[in-house]
Amino acid sequence: MTSEPTPLLALDLTGTFAFGLNGALLAVRAARLDVVGVVVLGMITALGGGFIRDVMIGSLPPSTLLDWRYYTLAALGALIAFALSRHLRRIGKAITVLDTIGLSTFAVTGASTALDAGLGVAPAILLGVVTAVGGGTIRDTLVRQIPTVLRSGLYAVPALVGAAVTVATVEMGVYGLPAALGAAAACFLIRMLGLRYGLNAPEPPETRRGKESHGADV
Amino acid sequence: MTSEPTPLLALDLTGTFAFGLNGALLAVRAARLDVVGVVVLGMITALGGGFIRDVMIGSLPPSTLLDWRYYTLAALGALIAFALSRHLRRIGKAITVLDTIGLSTFAVTGASTALDAGLGVAPAILLGVVTAVGGGTIRDTLVRQIPTVLRSGLYAVPALVGAAVTVATVEMGVYGLPAALGAAAACFLIRMLGLRYGLNAPEPPETRRGKESHGADV
Amino acid sequence: MTSEPTPLLALDLTGTFAFGLNGALLAVRAARLDVVGVVVLGMITALGGGFIRDVMIGSLPPSTLLDWRYYTLAALGALIAFALSRHLRRIGKAITVLDTIGLSTFAVTGASTALDAGLGVAPAILLGVVTAVGGGTIRDTLVRQIPTVLRSGLYAVPALVGAAVTVATVEMGVYGLPAALGAAAACFLIRMLGLRYGLNAPEPPETRRGKESHGADV
Repeated sequence: MTSEPTPLLALDLTGTFAFGLNGALLAVRAARLDVVGVVVLGMITALGGGFIRDVMIGSLPPSTLLDWRYYTLAALGALIAFALSRHLRRIGKAITVLDTIGLSTFAVTGASTALDAGLGVAPAILLGVVTAVGGGTIRDTLVRQIPTVLRSGLYAVPALVGAAVTVATVEMGVYGLPAALGAAAACFLIRMLGLRYGLNAPEPPETRRGKESHGADV
Repeated sequence: MTSEPTPLLALDLTGTFAFGLNGALLAVRAARLDVVGVVVLGMITALGGGFIRDVMIGSLPPSTLLDWRYYTLAALGALIAFALSRHLRRIGKAITVLDTIGLSTFAVTGASTALDAGLGVAPAILLGVVTAVGGGTIRDTLVRQIPTVLRSGLYAVPALVGAAVTVATVEMGVYGLPAALGAAAACFLIRMLGLRYGLNAPEPPETRRGKESHGADV
Repeated sequence: MTSEPTPLLALDLTGTFAFGLNGALLAVRAARLDVVGVVVLGMITALGGGFIRDVMIGSLPPSTLLDWRYYTLAALGALIAFALSRHLRRIGKAITVLDTIGLSTFAVTGASTALDAGLGVAPAILLGVVTAVGGGTIRDTLVRQIPTVLRSGLYAVPALVGAAVTVATVEMGVYGLPAALGAAAACFLIRMLGLRYGLNAPEPPETRRGKESHGADV
């Protein structure tokens, strides 16, 4: 074990609850689903990233099915979001903040869990990103939206930074609650600043050159 | 083992065949695919839920790849549906009934298999639902439809009832072929009654209040 | 082990690089993503089929996360495609050829790996097809296109032939680099000839009969 269980678990549960709220609010707003659809989508958003991580490291059944706190928090978050959605005047803002909390915590716990499972530095960072964006990507695909990770460069990049800081602190032997919180905060700040100032990753040269050359030959 | 293998296997094979037919009929009707696409979609519908279940409990390779009856029945169902689709005057009705048979049988076998694998009561019920709706959800996503489990509250709820009855009878020590059939019948009846009388789960408060408040700020 | 590791690895790395290029070019052309989205889609296309294969045979973590050459080649292919896309006058043609290279190599390595893992003849062929079409299917679904494997009969069929030839040569005890290349070449030629001459698999009888009978009762 290269990490203490406590910061990992606390961050993981925070992210699960935030993603449960987030997925449910998005379901209420974007797809206008009934209560079952809202809860299903909230739970998928909250548990999907951890499922993919645990499948990839071969830790099955996934921890989120073995520990009742995960699926209970995911369902609870979704139900609260369903009940409160009427009173949220700026629901779009809440969706964004909750999504960024989930992204930040899961990038850290995903990378840390992958290292614990014996993966190397680069795959651990990769798996941190996948854990962070996985649940939201499944959610977006199910409601027929292009996933945020593909549309916005400043979605995967903050997760990559959070996962990389996590892996670096583990390798330097200083990983613990402060380091985990710092890595999550780095991810959170980059994502929120990117949204506020409309920063984006470079587009393909061809797209910059002009849109008129895009034929239908694909 | 908390269950006899026979009722499990018989129900599982029935569901596999029904979902193979169902997925193929839906492919013929909704997406107008060629014979390969129809068979692929039929097999994904039939085998997808079991794949997810076996991945989640770490029973790999999945039972549906180890036992020739599963993939043969899935492919056979899809080919029969492809050949017969011309003669089915009420193909929409057939799709619904076959889907409900698959839903009912997989909810029971999914929950029962999850208990056998050592999962707790709540995760076993959850995995029963996932096994029941998983194949159809992959199918819907591939042909770009919002999955039924998100659109209709009375799709996940019957599966939840079937899985819960299964888990209850296992816990009480009375699980066997009659209990399994009873659990599947409960799921089947709730789903069919819900469809007939147009029952639905509650919608979000906001949606009930009016549609004009839905901005584009998501 | 029924196969030497060398031909398997060389083919697998070739397919990974080709699919990395292919997924990225498609992302540039079809969905106009930024550099992060292009790399993510290239890596998903390159690594997705192998992920599904390794999950199905229970070989976790997947080989593509344990061996640095896989994810490095996938990312490198995607970055090269991003940089070169401006200079490719016939980008559609390049996408098709690269896709067929990935399809051919992964059909062979998928089937061969499945046999090594102890699966029977039919599931090994099935898993060869899934490995070949899996990454592209995830890619298509994420950018909201109906996957090629469903739309075009002559996409799964060449992969099926490549996988079947592989399994046959392993069973006859003559599998090795020449046999693997032959199986991949068979897949490649059938796919390219099918595209050139516009061959397609049979459509459902109902579709042939006329489009006006398609109601909205699904």
